[in-house]
Amino acid sequence: MECYVVDTTRSPYARLKPVPINRVLITDNFWKPRLELLRRVTLKEQYRFLEETGRLDNFRVVAGKGGVFRWRIADDSDVYKWLEAVAYTIAYQPDEELIELANSVINDIKNAQEQDGYLFTYQQFYKEKYKRWENLRDMHELYCAGHLIQAAIAHFRATGKDDFLKVAIKLADCIYNTFGPNKRLGVPGHPEIEMALVELFRVTRKEKYLSLAEFFINNRGKGLIGGSAYHIDHVPFRKLKEIVGHAVRALYLNCGATDIYMETGDLSLFKTLERLWHNMTSRKMYITGGVGSRYEGEAFGDDYELPNYRAYAETCAAIANFMWNWRMLLATGECKYADVMELALYNGILAGISLDGKRYFYVNPLADRGARRRQPWFSCACCPTNIVRLLASLPGYLFTTSKEGVWVHLYIGSKVRISPDNTHSINLELYTEYPWKGDIELYIDTDISLMFTLYLRIPFWCDEGDIIVNGKSLNERIIPGSYFKIRRVWKRGDRVQLHLPMRTKMIVSHPFVLNNSCRISLMRGPIVYCFEYEDNKDFDVWCLAIPISTTIKAQYEPNLLNGVVTLLGEGYVVNHKAWNDNLYLPLDKVKMEFKKVKFKAIPYFAWANRGIGPMIVWVRLLS
Amino acid sequence: MECYVVDTTRSPYARLKPVPINRVLITDNFWKPRLELLRRVTLKEQYRFLEETGRLDNFRVVAGKGGVFRWRIADDSDVYKWLEAVAYTIAYQPDEELIELANSVINDIKNAQEQDGYLFTYQQFYKEKYKRWENLRDMHELYCAGHLIQAAIAHFRATGKDDFLKVAIKLADCIYNTFGPNKRLGVPGHPEIEMALVELFRVTRKEKYLSLAEFFINNRGKGLIGGSAYHIDHVPFRKLKEIVGHAVRALYLNCGATDIYMETGDLSLFKTLERLWHNMTSRKMYITGGVGSRYEGEAFGDDYELPNYRAYAETCAAIANFMWNWRMLLATGECKYADVMELALYNGILAGISLDGKRYFYVNPLADRGARRRQPWFSCACCPTNIVRLLASLPGYLFTTSKEGVWVHLYIGSKVRISPDNTHSINLELYTEYPWKGDIELYIDTDISLMFTLYLRIPFWCDEGDIIVNGKSLNERIIPGSYFKIRRVWKRGDRVQLHLPMRTKMIVSHPFVLNNSCRISLMRGPIVYCFEYEDNKDFDVWCLAIPISTTIKAQYEPNLLNGVVTLLGEGYVVNHKAWNDNLYLPLDKVKMEFKKVKFKAIPYFAWANRGIGPMIVWVRLLS
Repeated sequence: MECYVVDTTRSPYARLKPVPINRVLITDNFWKPRLELLRRVTLKEQYRFLEETGRLDNFRVVAGKGGVFRWRIADDSDVYKWLEAVAYTIAYQPDEELIELANSVINDIKNAQEQDGYLFTYQQFYKEKYKRWENLRDMHELYCAGHLIQAAIAHFRATGKDDFLKVAIKLADCIYNTFGPNKRLGVPGHPEIEMALVELFRVTRKEKYLSLAEFFINNRGKGLIGGSAYHIDHVPFRKLKEIVGHAVRALYLNCGATDIYMETGDLSLFKTLERLWHNMTSRKMYITGGVGSRYEGEAFGDDYELPNYRAYAETCAAIANFMWNWRMLLATGECKYADVMELALYNGILAGISLDGKRYFYVNPLADRGARRRQPWFSCACCPTNIVRLLASLPGYLFTTSKEGVWVHLYIGSKVRISPDNTHSINLELYTEYPWKGDIELYIDTDISLMFTLYLRIPFWCDEGDIIVNGKSLNERIIPGSYFKIRRVWKRGDRVQLHLPMRTKMIVSHPFVLNNSCRISLMRGPIVYCFEYEDNKDFDVWCLAIPISTTIKAQYEPNLLNGVVTLLGEGYVVNHKAWNDNLYLPLDKVKMEFKKVKFKAIPYFAWANRGIGPMIVWVRLLS
Repeated sequence: MECYVVDTTRSPYARLKPVPINRVLITDNFWKPRLELLRRVTLKEQYRFLEETGRLDNFRVVAGKGGVFRWRIADDSDVYKWLEAVAYTIAYQPDEELIELANSVINDIKNAQEQDGYLFTYQQFYKEKYKRWENLRDMHELYCAGHLIQAAIAHFRATGKDDFLKVAIKLADCIYNTFGPNKRLGVPGHPEIEMALVELFRVTRKEKYLSLAEFFINNRGKGLIGGSAYHIDHVPFRKLKEIVGHAVRALYLNCGATDIYMETGDLSLFKTLERLWHNMTSRKMYITGGVGSRYEGEAFGDDYELPNYRAYAETCAAIANFMWNWRMLLATGECKYADVMELALYNGILAGISLDGKRYFYVNPLADRGARRRQPWFSCACCPTNIVRLLASLPGYLFTTSKEGVWVHLYIGSKVRISPDNTHSINLELYTEYPWKGDIELYIDTDISLMFTLYLRIPFWCDEGDIIVNGKSLNERIIPGSYFKIRRVWKRGDRVQLHLPMRTKMIVSHPFVLNNSCRISLMRGPIVYCFEYEDNKDFDVWCLAIPISTTIKAQYEPNLLNGVVTLLGEGYVVNHKAWNDNLYLPLDKVKMEFKKVKFKAIPYFAWANRGIGPMIVWVRLLS
């Protein structure tokens, strides 16, 4: 079996076709240990929480196996997301313990399913209190179903065993028998089922699932769930002008709409998606790829509303951002989507999990005084289980193919067996020290020589560089945010080198991002940096100002934070004690003294893995 | 009758004694027209809304007079707050129409009261659904009672008629019979009853009301209403370290605690209040005197969490800030409290009502793109009725006395009959063009010569100036944020002149207010300025930067916004189009072009009275 995450191999309107997870082996020093940690530690720790918090018992109770029923919003979905993560993990690398755990969980789920396919433990337990589909807005019934379907498909693709998939199909049929034209009207309060149904169509080729997904998109904005922007129900989907509402809901909805577009070619959907994407990336996205800046409603804010200390930027929203951009990339082959994926992956998403793989951020501030730290679990545990399924599926996002050839999207040291022409397969080996160095080497191993185009992503942050084929520079200008194409007959032993110099850059924000004015953040390659107390104990990082002319030195520190490149330089700190605890003072009453200091910045994703103290991403610029 | 707002004339621990509203006549060009507008237009408009929205009908329905019952949280209190405003207004200047309206409303209230004194129309209508005092946390039952008591006291003091006061006493007795040691335990979810009960003690001298107020303070933090910080129930009041929770609740609670302190001298209360005040004013207050920066929970944020675009700063919270500081001032005679009152009054509060007296802000941002405008009413109408009762009581805050003499707190052109020694009365006349000019003249008219101290407030913003008595400068250094004392025998015709030069000042924030770094606001005297589209149509005010060396000219414009001093100068605007709709760019990729422009700033309180466009308070500083 081939384990795809989003299988567009037969999608008529998808330009790109993914490479199954099981065809990829990650070999680098950055991601390989993280995937091992995920398999060895994180997934097993999470299983323990699923068990301890009663999430698994809920299925057993409903199946009549005893135990105590405990429920918090959408608990079933955590189990499904964990299963999906396990499926990708075992597709990538078998792990007996995980396989057995998954089998036992699937068994519990199977036993809990009703005769007619319905499965939602809350309703099954509280039959008297809650009627099926009674409150689509709040109850996450269809949301949980969507996650079950995604997990079951992943498990089927990972193992070839269809027992869980059969549960999913029975549930999907139960939903299909309930909702649709001339049946019950309704849309989910929390989108998710849409992309699950399209994926189920891709597995089963049954059109009914695709049309049910369309039904759920097309009926939004009719007030069926109250008409709020929070639920993205205030206008019909195709009339959306800006991205609003609960960030994860909005982005999952966009995932579903993109999936539908790839199957149907419905341009009215795609134009809406492009509009929303432009609005999000030019007005509402943190430099980390995090989105949903607003605490109230875990929602997208207004244009340019991107507070740092009070950033919400839920880990799940950064993941959803990645998921949506992956689909947009598959649909179009446009580099800007892969750029956002990479940005979110190395910053907004990776910050969501601790280096020891055991703690998580739900909210991801870009400035902190030390109060916010990762937690081992949450009563609403969407983020921990979401981050594991995203990281477990990582091997599936590195490469794709198209009818023209092979595409490299994420530069991660790896080996892949891939088919450039849908007939023959070749082996590709990629070596790099990314994200710390922009040097990449690709080796091609093919039995027969093959003509195809190699598409190499030139990241948005890279405005110079060199591409060398078999030792010879191509001497062509590279264009940031585009794919560099090399079309030729490729043969065994061909070697491509990319030199994408990673220079430290001072980044400024659009002037309308009021809280970032006169502030810069440091980026190097795809990595956003931050300043943390532990590396800068002589001063308060909130008071740091960096002169425009500072020379910043990048230095790999193998023993720091599992090995990171840090940025070193000289800056100045304003003496906040001159304010004498006043909040406001006339300018002429403040002695603006600056003290020269040496600073060290670390990757944002690695923050809060040491002691308690302030952190900041955007620091003052002295110009 | 003497119409006090907070009557500390017999409070043993209050340093200052207020002057009744009815002893003061406001004569200036700034406030006099506003009080007339309030009486002639605003209060009558609000009556119409109370009628149209069913708030008055609710009392009639409960009294069996027919009509439709409509309820939204705390509706009764809007009626009471309007009545309190009417009481202060008619105490100040009789208005037949308002007197009659008030009588008819009081009659409706009286008829709605239960035999045992209980009065809360929601419960009375929904007897089956809601038992008395069942949900003290959410139902605003004691909150409404508190507002009834305050309104009734005001009406009694304004008119000498005790019919409404009797209703209040009956209700207070009903509450006293229900709650207390060895009776029912409980505290209100929304404080308000505390200060009302202390005031009722002041009117009736019945200790039981004072001890009930203490009971309500002393039982907080025991989890009786759930233990949340939002309700300021997370720790006992005296253990509070920082000001947190719903801003209006927190500040009303502090008002009640201050009132109790002034009667009991309980230093543990006062020390807590000082601690909270310091935390608020040095960490959590906008430059406008607005507080409660956070949308979620309408709450105080963390230290230095003071977003501008996303400021919540509810009008009611600025009013509550004023109310608390008035009590702290009465308790101590310390100038810093009067400074905050003035700041809140001219900025955070006054911005809450339109120049035509017909529209209100609930939320008061310090930066806007044009979307937020004042509304004629709200479904939760706390702010409109709160701002009228505050403005109607304004004459009561200008002067106080103490055993040493006469204090002048707010410089507003006025005449007052006041007693410096509790025996003889004198007339004071105050002439000024405040808040536009810092020249103040005081004339003393007294039948007999009297020795007393005249306390003249030197506002925090004033660091130079001159004080002249009968034409002769005292040649003494004035200290900002203190009272200047002149002790002498005063006789008829004595004349005191204050010259408090109002210079335009560039104000900077503490460096930890991250979103204000490299930004200044302009203040002149007590007035905070803002930049609005209508006066600066050639550029986007969000892009304005002011050089540190700019000469700023202040100019009185009699025909602009009912007459305001505007600030004129030259600045630069950054060309935001250089970002080409990118949200983030490397510094070296942005052409930072600045265009020279002429700017005009207007008082913040007057914003959003003209066309739709951006506004901003804190602009970039070019240094």
